[in-house]
This record gives sequence, C-alpha cells and structure tokens, in this order.
Amino acid sequence: MEAHLRALGRDVVRTREPGGTPGAEALRDFLLFGGHDLSPRAEILAHFAARCEHVDRLIRPALARGAVVICDRFADSTMAYQGYGAGRGDPATVGLIEVLTAQVGLTPDLTLVLALDRALALPRLRARGGRSDRYEAADEAFHARVAEGFETIARTHAGRCVRLAADRPVEVVAAEVARLVDARLAGGG
Amino acid sequence: MEAHLRALGRDVVRTREPGGTPGAEALRDFLLFGGHDLSPRAEILAHFAARCEHVDRLIRPALARGAVVICDRFADSTMAYQGYGAGRGDPATVGLIEVLTAQVGLTPDLTLVLALDRALALPRLRARGGRSDRYEAADEAFHARVAEGFETIARTHAGRCVRLAADRPVEVVAAEVARLVDARLAGGG
Repeated sequence: MEAHLRALGRDVVRTREPGGTPGAEALRDFLLFGGHDLSPRAEILAHFAARCEHVDRLIRPALARGAVVICDRFADSTMAYQGYGAGRGDPATVGLIEVLTAQVGLTPDLTLVLALDRALALPRLRARGGRSDRYEAADEAFHARVAEGFETIARTHAGRCVRLAADRPVEVVAAEVARLVDARLAGGG
Repeated sequence: MEAHLRALGRDVVRTREPGGTPGAEALRDFLLFGGHDLSPRAEILAHFAARCEHVDRLIRPALARGAVVICDRFADSTMAYQGYGAGRGDPATVGLIEVLTAQVGLTPDLTLVLALDRALALPRLRARGGRSDRYEAADEAFHARVAEGFETIARTHAGRCVRLAADRPVEVVAAEVARLVDARLAGGG
C-alpha cells in the first residue's frame, strides 16, 4: 500500500503501535518486553499514553501537512486485546477503552481488518522473526477472544472498517487493499 | 500521622505516588528518571496508568480490609503539576485530567495540602537527599504555577481539602494533622 501511494505521488508515513516515536517505543518496550505486571486498567492507560504520544508527535503533524498515515494497529487493537481478550468484554473495561479512545480525538478514515486463522498466522509470525511479545505467548482461548473481538469491532464500525480475508496470495490481498484505499482517498469506498 | 493512627489500633498503609506497587514504581522510574520525552497528554496518561495500578492493587484492597491509607500525592498532584504547571491551566488539559480522575473512581476522604514557600521548601528537599526528579529541576515560574494550582484545587474542593501552613514547627503541624484526621475518621471534620 505504501509503494502504491508513493507511486501516486502521495506523501506517506508508515508507522506502528504501540510505538512510532522514541517515547512511545520506550513505552512499547516497557509494556511488551519489560516483564512488568500492571493491573488491567493500568495496562490500558499505558497503551493510551503511547497512543497519545504517537498521535500528538507523529500522526497529527503528518496529517496536517497532507500526508497519508498508514498505521499498523490503533485503538481497535486495544479494544480487541485488552477489552475482549484480557477483559473478556467486561463492560467497565470496554467502557474505559471507549472513554480513552474518545479522548485521543482521532479516528482512522479506513481500518483494514486482515482476518486469518491462527493456524495459518503462526507460521507467518515465525517466518517474520523478531522477539515474541507477551501477547504472542498467550493461550489459544485468549487469541480466539481477540479474533472474535476484531470481528465485533468490524461489524460495529462498518463505515470505516473493512474485513479482508488474508488467506489468499499476497498479491491478491494487496490489490484489494490498493482498490479500497484509492476509493477512500477519492472520497468514496 | 501513621504512628498516631497505629497507636489508636488502626491498620495503616502508608504509600506514595507515582508508585506504591512494583509496576507503578517501574512507571515512576520511567516518568521521573527515564529521560524519556513524552507529549503532555501522554505524560498525563502514564501518570494515571501508575495511579490505576496503585489503586487496583494496593489502595482498594487495603480499604476493603478496613485499613486507613495515607498516600503522599494523588490525582490533585497531576492536576497541579501537569494541569496548572506544565499545562498552564489549558482547558483541554484540565478536562483530560478530570475525565481520567473520574475513571479512577476513588476520591480521598481527606486531602492535606501542606503549603510552604519554595524558598523554605528547597533546603528541606536538599536535607531529605535522594535523587532530584525532573520536576524539582523545573524553573521557578513552573513551581509558582504548581503552587497556585494547589491553592485553586484546595479552594475548589474545600469539602475534602484542608490547607495547612507548613512553615511552623513539625510538632505543631503534626498535632493539627492528627486533629484533622481524628475528626474525619469520627465522621466530622
């Protein structure tokens, strides 16, 4: 998607969460690899601390100069992992995440949910290499709740979310992504 | 105050913020001594992450078993330092802190604001020793805004806040604190 947009002459910023700025990457290390044990609410707030740093210092300035920002994960991932996965959909937990998401004050124009059975995702994660974070080490029931959470989010926010089957060849998925992004940038889609 | 309450047979937990549990102390180190640069909103959220960890894991369990919790700093300090000091009373910043304080869902029964001219406070800080955190290194104008912030908070929440002049002998201040705490525990004061 990045190369596709650059070929169209767009200024593109590609980033990820948690992280994206030095301060947010330090929080990422603290959260994913620090071995610290935080209460569920504290973990949610720390993820939103990283998110606000990322939005304030990188995403908003990029949007202000007209760039397209491609971000790997955003508030929906906190809802899926902490709200539905760890929190099992507990209303107080989901409510806290909703309040904090509203405080961030920035909603993606288009959210792509790439759906893939965990049995197919695991070999891809291994092939990608890198450090295993604490979520990758969680049990299968947790990952099933996260996956169902993403499905719920995609249904609830059907205006901005598009669910894509990711068990197809990468070229096919990439072409569909490019079509969706072009349509959204043209004001439709 | 701790010794006074113990002498009365009370279960007493003395703690501090940011910190009070291993996870919150790790966040304290991150925030005060880590040298990380976070956006103002991110810093506020990270302070509330530490606060929720502290409330969930230490303060609420202590209150539930009937203990008296004495905490050195709480949400008012975030309002004074980040809201009025760093944020200069900006309504969006103050509003974020108010939203997060409501989410914490726990208000002190009694807040003692010990007021002391900075000229008198500095030698006490130096005599206390320990590491200087980033706030102690801030300029005088910042500390003046923080002090004025505490005065505003004490006036706005006059029901739970009591302002004490701390430029008196420690025995005199301690006796006044004991009187205020006894009265509040007796249901008055």
